[in-house]
Amino acid sequence: MKIVVLKFGGTSVGSIKRIKNITKIIISYLKKRYKVVVVSSAISGETNKLAKLTKQISSNFMPSEYDAIVATGEQVSCSLIAGRLNDQGYLSRSWLGWQVPIFTVGNHSHSRIVNVNKKNILKFLRKGGIPIIAGFQGINSENRITTIGRGGSDASAIMIAKFFKAEKCIIYTDVDGVYTTDPNIVPKAKKIKKISYEEMLEMSSLGAKIMQPHSIQDARLNRIDIEVRSSFKNISGSLITKRKSISSKNIIRGVSFTKNDAKITLVGVKDRPGVAASIFEPLYKNSINVDMVVQNISSNKKETDLTFTIKIEDLKKTEKLIKGNKKIKFKNIVIDEKVSKVSIVGVGMITTPGVTFRMFNALARKKINIIVISTSEIKISVLVDRKNLKKAVDVLHKEFKLDY
Amino acid sequence: MKIVVLKFGGTSVGSIKRIKNITKIIISYLKKRYKVVVVSSAISGETNKLAKLTKQISSNFMPSEYDAIVATGEQVSCSLIAGRLNDQGYLSRSWLGWQVPIFTVGNHSHSRIVNVNKKNILKFLRKGGIPIIAGFQGINSENRITTIGRGGSDASAIMIAKFFKAEKCIIYTDVDGVYTTDPNIVPKAKKIKKISYEEMLEMSSLGAKIMQPHSIQDARLNRIDIEVRSSFKNISGSLITKRKSISSKNIIRGVSFTKNDAKITLVGVKDRPGVAASIFEPLYKNSINVDMVVQNISSNKKETDLTFTIKIEDLKKTEKLIKGNKKIKFKNIVIDEKVSKVSIVGVGMITTPGVTFRMFNALARKKINIIVISTSEIKISVLVDRKNLKKAVDVLHKEFKLDY
Repeated sequence: MKIVVLKFGGTSVGSIKRIKNITKIIISYLKKRYKVVVVSSAISGETNKLAKLTKQISSNFMPSEYDAIVATGEQVSCSLIAGRLNDQGYLSRSWLGWQVPIFTVGNHSHSRIVNVNKKNILKFLRKGGIPIIAGFQGINSENRITTIGRGGSDASAIMIAKFFKAEKCIIYTDVDGVYTTDPNIVPKAKKIKKISYEEMLEMSSLGAKIMQPHSIQDARLNRIDIEVRSSFKNISGSLITKRKSISSKNIIRGVSFTKNDAKITLVGVKDRPGVAASIFEPLYKNSINVDMVVQNISSNKKETDLTFTIKIEDLKKTEKLIKGNKKIKFKNIVIDEKVSKVSIVGVGMITTPGVTFRMFNALARKKINIIVISTSEIKISVLVDRKNLKKAVDVLHKEFKLDY
Repeated sequence: MKIVVLKFGGTSVGSIKRIKNITKIIISYLKKRYKVVVVSSAISGETNKLAKLTKQISSNFMPSEYDAIVATGEQVSCSLIAGRLNDQGYLSRSWLGWQVPIFTVGNHSHSRIVNVNKKNILKFLRKGGIPIIAGFQGINSENRITTIGRGGSDASAIMIAKFFKAEKCIIYTDVDGVYTTDPNIVPKAKKIKKISYEEMLEMSSLGAKIMQPHSIQDARLNRIDIEVRSSFKNISGSLITKRKSISSKNIIRGVSFTKNDAKITLVGVKDRPGVAASIFEPLYKNSINVDMVVQNISSNKKETDLTFTIKIEDLKKTEKLIKGNKKIKFKNIVIDEKVSKVSIVGVGMITTPGVTFRMFNALARKKINIIVISTSEIKISVLVDRKNLKKAVDVLHKEFKLDY
């Protein structure tokens, strides 16, 4: 059986008109002799509307009941899709998490899928039916409704593709693929035909709009090829796949960036073991994501300067936590609210020397000062003044031949 | 175990404020040492909103998917109630139809409850928990979500009360009980403390606003006492119970009426066997409810006059169906759009002679002409000109000592 999993995001089922549109997409795969398994998100905005109701009851609403409430979003969208297909003369029905069942483990609102029962759905596929499976939900061992914390409906689609041994898993969304950089900033940005899981993960600022990193990681671990494409335009998208399947001339595949970072430098921190942990622990506990971290070795060996970046919206909270932290001593705190991070990403850089030099040289030519540098195996990131952001992205996009 | 079933209607859970209010009611029963089982409807308006979505997809939307969609309404309200109770420090959780499970038979959207699994809920009650069960829904033998066609959440509450052998089943709604007649018409209308199932059924015009006749019938068959009371005001309501438990001085318990009836008379109908059936069959097939039917025996034995009443909103359709019906021949059709039906109801009339006389006499005193008469064992109905409606209700309310 040649199975394709089609996943539709919230905007793709965002109105009755759009639901009618995606059923045409579903039918087109039947015509290509695929057995189609559909996974749908809730109508966009619905999950937030439902979550808001729970907040009006309690700021600390019971997670098990929260899951039962938000899971209704997918219940509605899946039945509307099945109803539309039925109206068009196709055999279709919805399948809720408990009906499949999709078994999950872990806490409510943060569950993980561990098994998908295929029996009844395979029977339905053999009869020519189109099952519409509710994304984002499952059940736990206590027969309660759970929701998938990380990656949501994307994670559902990937696990369903895995258990059904699907030939393809296609994520239909409101963007038409992964670009070399944001086309709104660099008009010459190009759609990437194939990108590796690793590159996609490192392109977080571009990728996060398309897929949650955790879903990409799930796909990588299970070796599921994912095609990301638009449900609005019938044009080819981007394939996220394993490195080996990619033969690209380009060393660098994309230039990603963040717009709104803030940099904090603690000057003259008493340098003793555990000091970094005592700074970052309270931030972690308050869900503040620390991105780049650099510790400058000072000539005075009893003191050091520590620099790190955070999202600008976390700045006030972070400042308060640091100033109120009695475990650390420092001379001064320096804050820069106007910085941005620019990264070049590509598996090719592992085997190609000189990428770092070319990056720094290109920025220097444009007189862009590099504030902080941080590197991984397949990504180099620099922190620059926000006013230089567009210039930096432009020059790097050109330098690494992504313009063509 | 002393169990009470509390059912809350859509308006009782119509807002976050109201949900917070009903949890106070629930807690008050715990303090009276009851084990409380809650059954809830959807937030008022939600079911219609969901049904509207399906209509935008298809005027003939698949009933199985329709049920899955509208069942989300109760899923949300029940979890909000459980979440609120939890927030107030009480052990509570929601139970959906498939989780109980509540087994139903019959077609989708018109299912009937045949069994309620008590095991897990009893265990929860013993632990001191408050189960919140979704009304209006169950599952069928194929593990699909079904909805209860007749009586909806009231029917759910009554069947749950039956299977749990509840001491009481209390229907919380937006009216505070059953009145001798509509207090908006007759200010002297009194709340009825106890009313028999049969009287409640015959008081359709008053009763239907409070409970679906089918639910009253379910309660009657299963001998479940039902208390109807307001979730907004803490005042005693009305008990619907078996005849034997009622000792009332009053022969007549209430005066019910319909405001908007239309009367149709077919003059000179060819009188042959099957003629009545051939008139009413197309009306039945078009869901037009025929109420009073009178056939006047004509002196000319080959012809008869046939009179019946319908709701005024069905008049145009009915007229069209009759005029286009080739199976019947008649001389003339006479329509009166300004009639109303007034009924007196009471089990006492079975054993008390003279009730009919007293009714007609009272109306005659007020010079109210009786157009049509129809009687059942515990109800006498007359059709009057609409302009006489208030006068008729007033005089009958007084005649049968309901004013005091």
